[in-house]
Order: sequence, then structure tokens, then C-alpha cells
Amino acid sequence: MHMSVLAPPAVATIAVYGSSGYAGRELLRLLAAHPQARAVACTAGTRAPAQCDLVLLALPHGASGEVGRELAGARLPVIDLSADLRGEWQYGLPELHRADIAGAAAVANPGCYATAAILALAPLMAAGVVEPQLVVDGKSGVSGAGKTPSDRNLFCSAAEGIAPYAPVGHRHQAEIESELAAVAGAPVSVTFTPHLAPFSRGLLVTAYARLAQPLSQSGLDELLLGAYAGEPFVQVVDGVRTQPLRGSNLCHVQGWIDAERGAVVVAAALDNLVKGAAGQAIQNANLMLGFDETLGLPAEAAWL
Amino acid sequence: MHMSVLAPPAVATIAVYGSSGYAGRELLRLLAAHPQARAVACTAGTRAPAQCDLVLLALPHGASGEVGRELAGARLPVIDLSADLRGEWQYGLPELHRADIAGAAAVANPGCYATAAILALAPLMAAGVVEPQLVVDGKSGVSGAGKTPSDRNLFCSAAEGIAPYAPVGHRHQAEIESELAAVAGAPVSVTFTPHLAPFSRGLLVTAYARLAQPLSQSGLDELLLGAYAGEPFVQVVDGVRTQPLRGSNLCHVQGWIDAERGAVVVAAALDNLVKGAAGQAIQNANLMLGFDETLGLPAEAAWL
Amino acid sequence: MHMSVLAPPAVATIAVYGSSGYAGRELLRLLAAHPQARAVACTAGTRAPAQCDLVLLALPHGASGEVGRELAGARLPVIDLSADLRGEWQYGLPELHRADIAGAAAVANPGCYATAAILALAPLMAAGVVEPQLVVDGKSGVSGAGKTPSDRNLFCSAAEGIAPYAPVGHRHQAEIESELAAVAGAPVSVTFTPHLAPFSRGLLVTAYARLAQPLSQSGLDELLLGAYAGEPFVQVVDGVRTQPLRGSNLCHVQGWIDAERGAVVVAAALDNLVKGAAGQAIQNANLMLGFDETLGLPAEAAWL
Amino acid sequence: MHMSVLAPPAVATIAVYGSSGYAGRELLRLLAAHPQARAVACTAGTRAPAQCDLVLLALPHGASGEVGRELAGARLPVIDLSADLRGEWQYGLPELHRADIAGAAAVANPGCYATAAILALAPLMAAGVVEPQLVVDGKSGVSGAGKTPSDRNLFCSAAEGIAPYAPVGHRHQAEIESELAAVAGAPVSVTFTPHLAPFSRGLLVTAYARLAQPLSQSGLDELLLGAYAGEPFVQVVDGVRTQPLRGSNLCHVQGWIDAERGAVVVAAALDNLVKGAAGQAIQNANLMLGFDETLGLPAEAAWL
Repeated sequence: MHMSVLAPPAVATIAVYGSSGYAGRELLRLLAAHPQARAVACTAGTRAPAQCDLVLLALPHGASGEVGRELAGARLPVIDLSADLRGEWQYGLPELHRADIAGAAAVANPGCYATAAILALAPLMAAGVVEPQLVVDGKSGVSGAGKTPSDRNLFCSAAEGIAPYAPVGHRHQAEIESELAAVAGAPVSVTFTPHLAPFSRGLLVTAYARLAQPLSQSGLDELLLGAYAGEPFVQVVDGVRTQPLRGSNLCHVQGWIDAERGAVVVAAALDNLVKGAAGQAIQNANLMLGFDETLGLPAEAAWL
Repeated sequence: MHMSVLAPPAVATIAVYGSSGYAGRELLRLLAAHPQARAVACTAGTRAPAQCDLVLLALPHGASGEVGRELAGARLPVIDLSADLRGEWQYGLPELHRADIAGAAAVANPGCYATAAILALAPLMAAGVVEPQLVVDGKSGVSGAGKTPSDRNLFCSAAEGIAPYAPVGHRHQAEIESELAAVAGAPVSVTFTPHLAPFSRGLLVTAYARLAQPLSQSGLDELLLGAYAGEPFVQVVDGVRTQPLRGSNLCHVQGWIDAERGAVVVAAALDNLVKGAAGQAIQNANLMLGFDETLGLPAEAAWL
Repeated sequence: MHMSVLAPPAVATIAVYGSSGYAGRELLRLLAAHPQARAVACTAGTRAPAQCDLVLLALPHGASGEVGRELAGARLPVIDLSADLRGEWQYGLPELHRADIAGAAAVANPGCYATAAILALAPLMAAGVVEPQLVVDGKSGVSGAGKTPSDRNLFCSAAEGIAPYAPVGHRHQAEIESELAAVAGAPVSVTFTPHLAPFSRGLLVTAYARLAQPLSQSGLDELLLGAYAGEPFVQVVDGVRTQPLRGSNLCHVQGWIDAERGAVVVAAALDNLVKGAAGQAIQNANLMLGFDETLGLPAEAAWL
Repeated sequence: MHMSVLAPPAVATIAVYGSSGYAGRELLRLLAAHPQARAVACTAGTRAPAQCDLVLLALPHGASGEVGRELAGARLPVIDLSADLRGEWQYGLPELHRADIAGAAAVANPGCYATAAILALAPLMAAGVVEPQLVVDGKSGVSGAGKTPSDRNLFCSAAEGIAPYAPVGHRHQAEIESELAAVAGAPVSVTFTPHLAPFSRGLLVTAYARLAQPLSQSGLDELLLGAYAGEPFVQVVDGVRTQPLRGSNLCHVQGWIDAERGAVVVAAALDNLVKGAAGQAIQNANLMLGFDETLGLPAEAAWL
């Protein structure tokens, strides 16, 4: 599962499978501005281009696993954006697994909710300051529900209100637990409820934990700042909101201590199609190809 | 603080203070369709109408308390929609305090988040089936931020994304704890984070608790159905969302058991300006005036 | 095609065909609150109820005509909400054809854009004060695009922007021309472009004409006020916008004179599912059944 | 009013006045990514930086004129984004006045509606194929109403519906007429109605004209394509809509012939804060500084 990169290619050819969905189109959009990548959109008929340097799979959940295993078997470096191979392939969250991703030949890109939830909670778990029973309340824009028409993503169903969905057993729940348990070195339980809110792009998780030991607001701020110092795409902010992150690969994090109740709340915001999908995949691709990790990835926060 | 209603008036004259804000305008809109009420909008200059049967105060937080105490001192039946007199006057949540409200002369109308959170969690607390450390994640439409212009309620600030605000110490937090503690007969801790989402009307709370004893999904459904059987404005539903409740005085409730994690999630949706403010105030007024509790209150759920 | 109503039924039984679309569901919602109607939702299997007093057809364009003709042939009073029988059956715009509708057995309900455009322009055409080359620019909420999933009514396609569609040859274009020509007593040409804007319900047309003779702003106001004096569902307003009309059967109209350019602009707003579809159908049904025209139809303008 | 650029500076220092409004913030955002510009935000206290190469004025209408004249008097190259100096300074629409802008010392940046309307109609006027009585129906996102709180830009006022404003005498009306008259070589009359629609960024104009001579659909397409061949920021498209243009400096144009009625409709879409304000200002600044006109300006169309 490991490959050694001797010298990065000057320009990498990247094959994108499944470019009709939201994540696939975002891959093509971002790759078009990537200074050292050339994207090739692959359809069913044109699969498995022999000469590409890396494959990005943006196929539907369920359809991706088989294709991914086949490509990996053919020794093509591959990143799968679906949930199919999470738990099996190297988990592609650079903030936790940068070196392993750089050395991996097959990477499973994290879910959008999982990315935000893990980035919100990992510093607390690593520091051992909270109880392991966590609550994660997620709010996603409607692009998170995909392009296949349903009662969830029609305008008149989704607009002008909010609703929870899949309150128990969402596929990202186990992914969050598994990663946070690895960080904590102990089992972790996450109760997770996603919601669809009426905007196109953007995702916010609000994560709740009980303090296992005293932690002040400034202690929390330092913990978060320390955890993400030097990270190119995670910023600790005051006034976390999703709007400024549209189109960028940034994740914004903010935490609050409720001293009276011994509780801590950490919110993390990102663009579900960029840091939550296509941008993070390109970040992983950069690592695997030996490129600068930030190449072609907008880090600037637009203001609306 | 109590008054006896000998016979309800055929048509009650109701004075509305503060009719320029969203809640005040909604009071006038609903009262215009009330078959036994006649509303009089009162401005600063025309205060304290001697002949009215009841006063509804929709003044800003902070400005309402003094006016309310003065009116109550003048023995006028009064309902205050602000937070100023909660904890001091009879709490106006009919589902918990119907008889006391009917006999009260001065009623504090609950906060919108508090209404939803208490209706979501009270059945669990009353049954003693959950631990007392609760998490309440709230999402409100932008009318919940009031009409005074700010960075929160300008269109370009609020649209096309979501943000938390006042994550610790929101004024509804203590209100929720106090009411749930009374139901539970024991102290309760609530970690509460409200969010502003991009729609005008509507509010959803997603409440999280850990089970203190086993509870199945059907057990939870029965618990909720039993708690709200006969309630005219609370319905246990499948597919809770805020959109169908626009303009109605209904609260929709739905619960889920995460058996694997010993957790329970209950969501409650309502229109923050109706069941969360003006509608509930009229429900309380109906009780205080000896009217049918449902008079003039839309219970129908529109579909979009 | 005419029937004589001897005495209106105390309660009319109304069969609704096609109750799964937006207009059909709105019919059922409104009829549920109608004091003298009992609605029966009819599916393919339960068609042609022999005992009903009137049939409302909310079937898709193209599928409605045949069913409508069959029902009319069976001497059942019927109102068709599709475009199929416009031009053939009595046109159901009460403000222009009240008496004929009351005496008709088969009525074609107007299109939503046509309703607004005709109500905006008919007073000008009747007064003979404008040239017959008209421009109508329409903006509709997304429910106007129906429930069948398409690239137009998915949330991420329709949200956060605006687009024209069917700029030439929209089916409402001929309908507007034909009605206005009848009012004017001379041919009329209408260039019509509809747009989809990101809200669920509501429709605005902005109609443009060149003055054929001088007309002052107050003259225009008087013309519009005179045309709609006594009309229960058309109001001349200052500050026309669609938001307050959600759920109501009202149409709001406002006009402006550009004296310098010899031009007049009239805007008309309504709820496309109520006055633009289901509400107007019930208004027509009331007329055909001998009921008060306003029965069961909300005329109140909510404020948001 | 003219200055000669001997050699462009390697990196230009650009002073931005009024960086708190939407246009000013967008200027800073875009300049941050400009490869040859360094932006200095100037507040009231720090005005008139002696060493800057160019000044961008994003002050409110009314406040900008005086400052602009003072700066121009001090021989500083300056671009004013307000309406104050339009008609007096060189009009900054590169597609019509590229050479004059490059040689000008003081440029008035066009209004957002004017930019779209002129780009939609200029090819028709230049070709002499339409009558000079034009209709322009504009739809703007709410950022077009500015940041000063009002009943127009509060979320609950603007969301979930649409409204016209300033139907006669909008400040862009004369600007459109003047530019189109210059193109046509004859007087032009424009009836213009702007509307506010519920999204943050984006603007669409739908322009209507009567044909003065026969023009087929393919003739219209060729006319538009010919007019904008080689233009870096104007594209003739099929399926014009505002969503893909968020953040880009592109203007998309599409036209339709209604042969039956002898009418032509041309729609133009752009981001009101980029091609309609800050982006166009930078395009003008690039010309005035002798830079490549496209420097630092995103031309890519994102998909949502």
C-alpha cells in the first residue's frame, strides 16, 4: 500500500472518475487552477487511463469501492472520495495523518461532517481533557445531499426551513468515533445528528463534551491554537460562520467553555465541497505526488 | 397574583404594547382573525388603556419589566413576551402549567428556544429515563434576531450560510434548566448553543441526552405520544421539519434512540413567532380570559 | 357549456384530480378550511366520482385536456388548472369574466403569470391610454417550476441567483395577448420573459407600456383604483412585494409613470399557488356553485 | 485629464478609500490576490497617501465627488466607484472605452446595472437594428442595496420574495441612455426598473427592444459573438444565469428573437460586486497602470 516518490512530476496527470456529481465538478474546477496538475475527466467508457499519475474517484457511494480496489490493484495511486473504502484504506485527513498519506498509494478521503467533527474535537481528545461521550450536531448546505433528485434536495423542500435527517447511524458517525478514539487512545462514543439547512455550500458542526478536568476559556483557546499552529488550512477564529469559507479549503474552528456546567463547545466550519470533499482530495493528492500540500488550493476567506 | 374569572367576556379588548417588532406585529396579525378578541395597538403616548381586558407586552428585553410590574400593580391582567419577568411571574407554557396560567393575573411568556427545548425534553425528564446533563442545539430563522439592524440580521450577513451565536449563557439556558428541573424533581444542566439559519420564520431544537435506563424506539415513541395526547398544539410526527409550521401554533416533536450508544435525541420544531412568541401568548390569553384555549390560533400545518 | 344553478348546495363535494403536485396539494389545503366544501382527492383508480358537485383538475399540462373533455361531456362542472383547455373553455379570471364564469360548466383556470400580467395591464388597455406593444417581465418562485425534478428546481440549481427561462413562446404569452386584446378591442403584442427566483412561493410581473396619450401619476393611480374598487382580491398598494401575499388569494398592483419618457410601468404580485392557481380555482368554483365568491379564501396579507 | 504611462510600475501601490462597504471590501479581497498590486486601506485619518500609484474610491454616493476632485487636482490617478462623477470623468467601461481609459487620469466606474444593460444592448444599438425605445428590467442581489441597514436589506424584508424599487428615475437610467446614445449616434430612451431578489451577489438585466429591421436568431447570435470576440470578460452563452459568476469578473450575455412579434430580448448576468463594481475598477486600474487588463481578475465561472 506504500509507494516511494523519487521526484515529483513537473505536471501530474490526474484522472477524475465521476465528474458529473457536485464533488466531481468541484474537482475539475479546482484542478483547472492547479499549477502542476492536468485533469482528465473519465467516463465509464474511457476508464483506467494507463498514463495518469493519480486517480480521483468521485463515484457514488457503493459504486466506488470496486473500481477503487481494481485501480489500486493495478498499482495506480488513487484517492476515493466515497465512504466505501474508509476503514480499509489510509484515512486522508492531512492534519492527523500527513506523513502516512504522503507515503500511501490508496487513500480514503474523509466525509465532510467527519472532517469538521474530527478537527473540532481532536485537540480536546489528544489533551485528555474531556469525557469520551460526545455530541456532534451537524448542519450542511444542500449540496451535501447530492445531485440525485429527492424530496430532500428539491428547492421547495429544502428552502425556508431546516430539518434533521438520518439522526442515528449516519455513515460518518463510526468514522468520527474511530478517528477520535485513535487520538484519545481509548474508546469514544459520538451521538451525531446531521441537518440540511437552506444554502448551497457550507457545513458547520457544533460539538459538545463534558470536561474531565478544569479548563478555562484561555486554556481552550491555547489548546486549539497550539494544535493548529502551522496548519495551512485550519484557523482558530472569533466569529465562526460558514459564509466566508465558500470556495476555500479552510476550516475555521472556535471553542467556548461553559464553566458553570463543566462543558465545552467547539464549532468547526468549512465548505463541504472543498475542505469537505474535493479540496481535501487535492490536498491529499499533493501529498501523495510530493507537491507542496497547498498547491492549487484557495486558502483565502472571501467575505460573503 | 391570582384573579378569578367569573364569566369570560363575549369579546375581550386586548392592548398590545410594542407592536412595531416582529412579535408585536404577529400579535396584531393573529388577533385580527381571533373571533373573540379586539386588539388595540398601544404606543408610548397611548399607554395603559383603562378599559382593556388584558395587556400583551411585546416590548424589548429590558424595557418590558418595569411596564409589566406597573400594569400588574394596577391589577390589569398582563402577559409579558420579554425575558424580563421570567422566573418572577407565572411561566406561560400551557402544556406544563395550564391550570396555573388560567388562574394567573401576570404571565411570563416563554422564550422561543425554551418552548421547543422544554417540549422536546419534558417527557423524558418526567419519566426519569435520562441523565440530567443535557445538550440543546438550537437553530432559528433570522426573525429570532429581532428587527434592530445588526451584523446578524442584515441579508448579506445571514444568507447562504449558518453561524452559532451566544454559545454560552444565552438567556433561555437558565429558563430551560429551571423548568426541566421542576419536571424532573432534581437539578438539570443544559448546554445550549443557538444558531441563526437563513430563513425568516421557524425554529428547530435538537436535544441530546444519555439514557439512564434502557429505552427502545417504540418505548420512546409511546412516551412522547402519551405525553402529548390531547394537547391541541403539540404533535408527535415522522419527518420533523420547520417549513410546514410557518404561521401555525403547532410544535412538532420527533425522537430517536441510538441504542448502541445509550443515547436519545429529540427534535422539536415550531414557528418562532407563533408557538415561540405571539401564538403562545394568545394561547395564554385565551386561558386567562376563560376562552377556549385554541381560539384564533391556526393549528393547521401548511405544506410549504 | 352553460348550466343553471337553481340553489347552491349547502356543502359542495369537490373532486380533486392530481393532488400530488404543488397546485393539487394547495387545493386540498385550502378546501380543508372552506366552510361549504368537502374535498375528495381522486387518483387514477378512483376517477369520475358520480356524486360530486364539481371537479378540479390539477393534472400535468398535456394530460389534463382529455380528462377534462370527458368530464365535461359527462355534464360534470369542471375547472381545469392546466393550460390544455385555455382558449377553448371559459377563461376563469373572475375580475374580467365574473358573470360568464358563474354561468359556465367548464372553466379553464388562468396561468399564474397570465393572471398577474392581465390584472396589471387590463385597466390600461381598457382605458386606451397605451400603445399595444407591451413588455412583461415575470419573476416566479421555484414552485412555479413544478415538482418534477429538473435542473431548474433542484435547490443548488435555483438558489442564490436568478435566471430567465423560455424567453420566447412561453405558453402564457398567447393567453395574455388574447385576453388583453379582448379588453382593448384591438390586437396586442406581448413580449414576455419569465424568470425563476430563489423563493418557494410568490410571483411578480413588471409590465411596461408606452403612453398613447398623457397620463399623470395621479391619473394612473385613479385608473387602477377605479378598475379594482370593489374587487375582493385585487388591491392597489404602495410598496408592492410578494412576501406579504404568501398563502393569500390577493393580488397587489402598483403603477408608475415615467413622464419624461412617456412610459408606464405596472407591477403585480401574487402567490403563484393561490391567486395564481388553487385559490383562483376555488374562487371560480365558488362562482360556479353559487357561493359567495370569497368563501374559504384568505384575503389577509401576512407580513412575512 | 490625460497622463502618459512611460513604463508600468513592477508593483503598484493602490490606495483604497472607503473599505468598509461591500465594494470596498471586495476591492481589498481582489487586490490581495493581484500579482502586481499592493493595496493600502485608507481611512478618514490616513487620507491622501502621497506615494501611491492610483486611488480607488469606494465612498458612498454623495461623499465621493469632492474627495475625487481633490485627488484628481493633486494629479493622482483615481477611479471613483460612486455615481458622483459619472458624466464628468471618463466612463470606465473597458469594452467601449478601452483606449481612452488607458490614457485617462480620472475614471468614473460604471454602475452595476448600467454595466450589464450597456453590455446587453450596445451591440444592437451599434448595428442599428432596433428602435431606440428600450426597456431594461434589472434584478440584483441584496448586496446591491449596500450595507447601511434599511427595510430593504434586512434579512426578513428581503428574503423569500421579490420587489421592485425606484421604478422611475434610478441613477443608472441616465447613464445607460447616455452610453447607448453615444453608441447609436442618436437619442435613446430607456425605461428601467430595478428589483431586489433574495441572494447576496449577482445581477441580471433583461433588456427588451423592438426590431427596426429583420434579424434572425442566428443573426443575433453572430452579432453578439462578433461584438465580444476577443473580450476577456464578456462571454455569449447558452443558459445565462447569475450563480456561476459569483466572484468572477465575467459578464454572460444571451439573446433571443421573438420573430412573430418583431422583438428582441437580451439578458446579461454578472456579479454586481465584481464586474459590477470592484472587479471592473481593477480592470480599469490595470489599463491606467499599463498592466495586462486581466491581471488579478478571476475569469473562471464556478458552477455554483
